[in-house]
Amino acid sequence: MSFEKLLARAKELAKLVDEYILKNLEGEIKNLYDACKHLIKAGGKRLRPFLVLTSYNVFSDDIQKALPIAAAIEVFHTFTLIHDDIMDQDELRRGVPTVHKIWCVPFAILAGDLLHAKTFELMSKAKIDPDKITQIIREMAESAIIICEGQAMDMAFEERMNVTVDEYIEMIKRKTAYLFRSSVRFGAIAANASNEMLQALTEYGEKLGIAFQMIDDILGLFGKEEETGKPVGSDVRESKKTYPILYALEHASEKDRETLINILSKKEKTEEEIDKALEIIKRSGGEKATRELAREYAKGAIDAISNLPDNAAKDYLIQLAEFVIKRSY
Amino acid sequence: MSFEKLLARAKELAKLVDEYILKNLEGEIKNLYDACKHLIKAGGKRLRPFLVLTSYNVFSDDIQKALPIAAAIEVFHTFTLIHDDIMDQDELRRGVPTVHKIWCVPFAILAGDLLHAKTFELMSKAKIDPDKITQIIREMAESAIIICEGQAMDMAFEERMNVTVDEYIEMIKRKTAYLFRSSVRFGAIAANASNEMLQALTEYGEKLGIAFQMIDDILGLFGKEEETGKPVGSDVRESKKTYPILYALEHASEKDRETLINILSKKEKTEEEIDKALEIIKRSGGEKATRELAREYAKGAIDAISNLPDNAAKDYLIQLAEFVIKRSY
Repeated sequence: MSFEKLLARAKELAKLVDEYILKNLEGEIKNLYDACKHLIKAGGKRLRPFLVLTSYNVFSDDIQKALPIAAAIEVFHTFTLIHDDIMDQDELRRGVPTVHKIWCVPFAILAGDLLHAKTFELMSKAKIDPDKITQIIREMAESAIIICEGQAMDMAFEERMNVTVDEYIEMIKRKTAYLFRSSVRFGAIAANASNEMLQALTEYGEKLGIAFQMIDDILGLFGKEEETGKPVGSDVRESKKTYPILYALEHASEKDRETLINILSKKEKTEEEIDKALEIIKRSGGEKATRELAREYAKGAIDAISNLPDNAAKDYLIQLAEFVIKRSY
Repeated sequence: MSFEKLLARAKELAKLVDEYILKNLEGEIKNLYDACKHLIKAGGKRLRPFLVLTSYNVFSDDIQKALPIAAAIEVFHTFTLIHDDIMDQDELRRGVPTVHKIWCVPFAILAGDLLHAKTFELMSKAKIDPDKITQIIREMAESAIIICEGQAMDMAFEERMNVTVDEYIEMIKRKTAYLFRSSVRFGAIAANASNEMLQALTEYGEKLGIAFQMIDDILGLFGKEEETGKPVGSDVRESKKTYPILYALEHASEKDRETLINILSKKEKTEEEIDKALEIIKRSGGEKATRELAREYAKGAIDAISNLPDNAAKDYLIQLAEFVIKRSY
């Protein structure tokens, strides 16, 4: 299977998901719903709904049954983006101004809250067994809690220079990988997959999520604004402790290390300082090391699903793991 | 039945609910959970869980089955308080500093998000029929969305001087009364009440919620800080369009009206201006008119449940409606 085929399928599913979401985000208070739809309309890969629907497709064809859950996952993801952008004071996302920049912080909080609630409303309407709905909703709520914990860790790490790789992995497992894990689980649960298949997909989802985040870490430093929709070097600006930065803190020369710590410790950083930090990270081999580790996780994800029935959906999942570590957006 | 008996019962149920909530708000990221528990530990009447459990008790005895839902409603309410305090820039709640004042805005956003998710997690664990759980969760999510819409209306009204009483009622139905309505509904649904009983309780909950909010409007202007836990005149400071203020805008003398509009239009208000506004509202008869309308709604709430089976739980609901319009906190 080629990437082209994967991307075509992703586009096809994204269209279904977007239509479903936009149809369900209408209400009397028009500007509130406009704020809710802003980032959805701005683009995005719809990776998480793709995972729900493709995991479902491994076992079952009738995609309509899983569509509310796939849409709900994207609605949830959008909520986290809106609130994260407030917390991180980010001004740009998907190439457009963030919700709190266009409206205001209170309104962005509210739009996020609405999307968070909408997640559960959509899930409660899926046309599957009520037992399965309850299980998916319970796991969604647990995921949301774990993601909040991950965000709290991410913020706490900004103040620290001694974050370990283990702590970092623990943080991204919560903040990013857990929703990938839940996405494939929900598809499989909705399709009545066996426990063994569910376990395999759970491992796939978590490892894929870790690989995805590590590539995101590279893009958060060196990604071009026209591709990522975010300013170059934004993770340095916010003193995030992403993998390439941790790698540089450990492997750079003593002098580089001191300079990097000095820059990361500053509340406000100049463009020159950000460029300097990026140069140090590159020189330390941080980018290469991150790509290598991401590749290992992606390989682990693919290995985890080797016992899944061989079909087109499984192939898409394998291709996706290959794609995730090659992407530039 | 006396108020003493009502308050004793309320205290008894509050203890059960608090124990259940605090037991379920533990996690690795300690300061995040501390922020979540802060307002719960600071007090509160636990009115909404009281409504869930007492509505349940009209039809069934085994309160344990409804306890996760009652606790979830209070957890949800706490989430809305934390986020509302950020949006309104309030510094005091229940006599203690608000969550964003003690921690910071990003952390308060996160604590609120965690509690929002926890609401659905707790509900998904209730030991009742999965069909009923799905119904309650769907209605909870819908309530959350409607409450967000109410908060958006409330904020939009701050900028306007021509808010009508109808618009105000529409706003408080969403922002406050809907959760009262949902609370009694959830208790009745969990207890397998008939549709007729459910309808009666729905009307009770909505009218009780409106009456409650109107008394809250009075307390938000004239309530003593040691009783309400909030500064005197805080609704004037924030240019809220509460019922007594709307009444004054309509019924005050031309001169008073101009002065009031002038004060409410200011972003920053002095203590003298706030006192002046309160004086005008009082002189217009705003407080008395608000109490009278609240009394009518409370009476409507009591009338709505006349066909409920006569038992202690029903008596508590009647007493509660009497209490709500007499309270000073």
